Amino acid sequence: MSNEALVQVTVEGAVARVHMNNPKTRNALSVAMMSALIDEFTAIAERRDVHVAVLSSEGHVFSSGHDLKELNGADEAARTEMFRVCSELMLLIQAIPQPVIAQVQGVATAAGCQLVATCDLAVAGSSARFGTPGVRIGLFCSTPMVALSRAVPRKQAMRMLLTGDLIEAEDALAHGLVSDVVPDDELPAATAELADKVAAASSATVALGKAAFYEQIQLATADAYTRMSEVMVANAGMPDAREGIDAFLGKRTPVWQHRTK
Amino acid sequence: MSNEALVQVTVEGAVARVHMNNPKTRNALSVAMMSALIDEFTAIAERRDVHVAVLSSEGHVFSSGHDLKELNGADEAARTEMFRVCSELMLLIQAIPQPVIAQVQGVATAAGCQLVATCDLAVAGSSARFGTPGVRIGLFCSTPMVALSRAVPRKQAMRMLLTGDLIEAEDALAHGLVSDVVPDDELPAATAELADKVAAASSATVALGKAAFYEQIQLATADAYTRMSEVMVANAGMPDAREGIDAFLGKRTPVWQHRTK
Amino acid sequence: MSNEALVQVTVEGAVARVHMNNPKTRNALSVAMMSALIDEFTAIAERRDVHVAVLSSEGHVFSSGHDLKELNGADEAARTEMFRVCSELMLLIQAIPQPVIAQVQGVATAAGCQLVATCDLAVAGSSARFGTPGVRIGLFCSTPMVALSRAVPRKQAMRMLLTGDLIEAEDALAHGLVSDVVPDDELPAATAELADKVAAASSATVALGKAAFYEQIQLATADAYTRMSEVMVANAGMPDAREGIDAFLGKRTPVWQHRTK
Repeated sequence: MSNEALVQVTVEGAVARVHMNNPKTRNALSVAMMSALIDEFTAIAERRDVHVAVLSSEGHVFSSGHDLKELNGADEAARTEMFRVCSELMLLIQAIPQPVIAQVQGVATAAGCQLVATCDLAVAGSSARFGTPGVRIGLFCSTPMVALSRAVPRKQAMRMLLTGDLIEAEDALAHGLVSDVVPDDELPAATAELADKVAAASSATVALGKAAFYEQIQLATADAYTRMSEVMVANAGMPDAREGIDAFLGKRTPVWQHRTK
Repeated sequence: MSNEALVQVTVEGAVARVHMNNPKTRNALSVAMMSALIDEFTAIAERRDVHVAVLSSEGHVFSSGHDLKELNGADEAARTEMFRVCSELMLLIQAIPQPVIAQVQGVATAAGCQLVATCDLAVAGSSARFGTPGVRIGLFCSTPMVALSRAVPRKQAMRMLLTGDLIEAEDALAHGLVSDVVPDDELPAATAELADKVAAASSATVALGKAAFYEQIQLATADAYTRMSEVMVANAGMPDAREGIDAFLGKRTPVWQHRTK
Repeated sequence: MSNEALVQVTVEGAVARVHMNNPKTRNALSVAMMSALIDEFTAIAERRDVHVAVLSSEGHVFSSGHDLKELNGADEAARTEMFRVCSELMLLIQAIPQPVIAQVQGVATAAGCQLVATCDLAVAGSSARFGTPGVRIGLFCSTPMVALSRAVPRKQAMRMLLTGDLIEAEDALAHGLVSDVVPDDELPAATAELADKVAAASSATVALGKAAFYEQIQLATADAYTRMSEVMVANAGMPDAREGIDAFLGKRTPVWQHRTK
């Protein structure tokens, strides 16, 4: 099967949809699937006409995580490669200039739950559920917990990790795993509306802000202020900020330039 | 306009009220306003009769953040100075010995939202709203997010930063941006009650505890225990702790000394 | 009084119950009580038949924290020892291979609240309450806040620390201080059910996962992925993972080996 078949990318306006299309494996994150996602997000990073990406999937399972048959058949070198590729994908999603919004229907488990935790924003249908059930098959969700434990409080992360229990969409929202919950039948429209709202902003500004977010969150507070002050000064000197402030003060709609890097 | 007019400070009992009084600019954080706040908080830090500070404001907007006209007219050196002063103010609020409680009516946006996130505690009226809308004018709220992303979960911070949407007081409470929500017409009384409760404690103990909080939160857990054990031992040897424990065991009201540093 | 009388340990199946049995002191964390807990958790760490520990207590107070009479009578060397032992206990709970679940009835205050925040999971009866009231007696809860401020958002931690107010079980759940709230009369059964669920997993996998959790939470994200990828590869090569995945794919119940280290 070619990568193109596993992941379908369509661009409408300034929004790219990255669609996992392998419902018969419950959108398992096989090496082929992860590599296809890496290829597509890498390509999107270069597209200045794309302001936002939506990560969606097909079927009753958003993603079930790693492909267990593939994992079971792998030797140590192959397993090492699987988790290297997986971590590369997760870091890439946070590293590309465009915000990535997960659109989550059904169940997201293990590395599938990690994908949701990793995306900058996540909209869940109200019947969506989330879990890290690796503990039940003897394989603790150690890489998923990197993303999970940075999204939700420790006790909630530990409960998911130690029990493997699924949590409901409303609890995922309350704990911080997703940013929005909407009725199931409104999921695509609500996600598109959120994507359009983010896409309407200056893409240069959003790219700067996304990178700055992940940089500053790892710094001590005083260091974060030093760096973010530099970022604010640079941002304020960008054409889109000068245009945006001028338009705001003049009560007109701003006209953004295209992102140039 | 003198700094005195922008910020009014009154002291009642052990509580200082630091009041931003510039509703016609929606209490914008101009360099003059920020400098006035720095002057006042610096003065309060030296006052041993003041145990708690309340940061309040006048009008339908708690604070709208930076003064956009001032920012738009600034060259790079002036912009650098603006964000240096802003970061100095935010770090100062957490560095002074007294807890600072934000009393929030109306809308708090951008650096105004950052002020709320920065204060040690925040009481919001039920109709108060919070946002970081810089993205809409091409100027990402990069310095506000230092405070915001340390107060609320990542997905919630990202949603505010990427959309510029305002969130309601109840959601701000659920996510951790404020510590209390009360009916609008009870806001001054409820804030005063909270301030009085904190002010009734030993100011030496509170000063030690506030400084210790921001120190330990940035350390690895084991290092935090090493340092906080030292702090506990030092605290237990202070006159107010000996008095407090003795009063508690003797079922009498403690009599605190004044803070001496 | 011997340590055995202060803390009672019983093992049923794969679950050890560590029971604080000193209701007349409100299960105060005297040096004797903390030393007994350290002894018992150290012994449990060595027991490969124990998969999970439940920390419970007797009476209307889960634990009131340090013994104030003992603290008041101590010189600086003795106080130093008290907080050294206390920190050792807290770090030990997170360092032993087995998850520790707090079963909380009544009130948990100061170092008693710290115990709850420290345990990997915590089940509270619906009338349980939590607080860090040291500020009221001049002794700020500086060591308790190490655990508290890593469990709940900053504003909520600060509110508890600066006011000494008790919070209700439902708020403790919402903020992340506990993982479960159940009706009071279901507390022992619900805790046992949660313990049994965790105990049913491979204890080697759970031990690996618990240690990995506390390691990765303190690392920068990219470093965390590097380390957790190594952990996943090692885990996937363990007999219990191979058995677990094989059993899952074969739709049969896995048979776990005993933990060997």
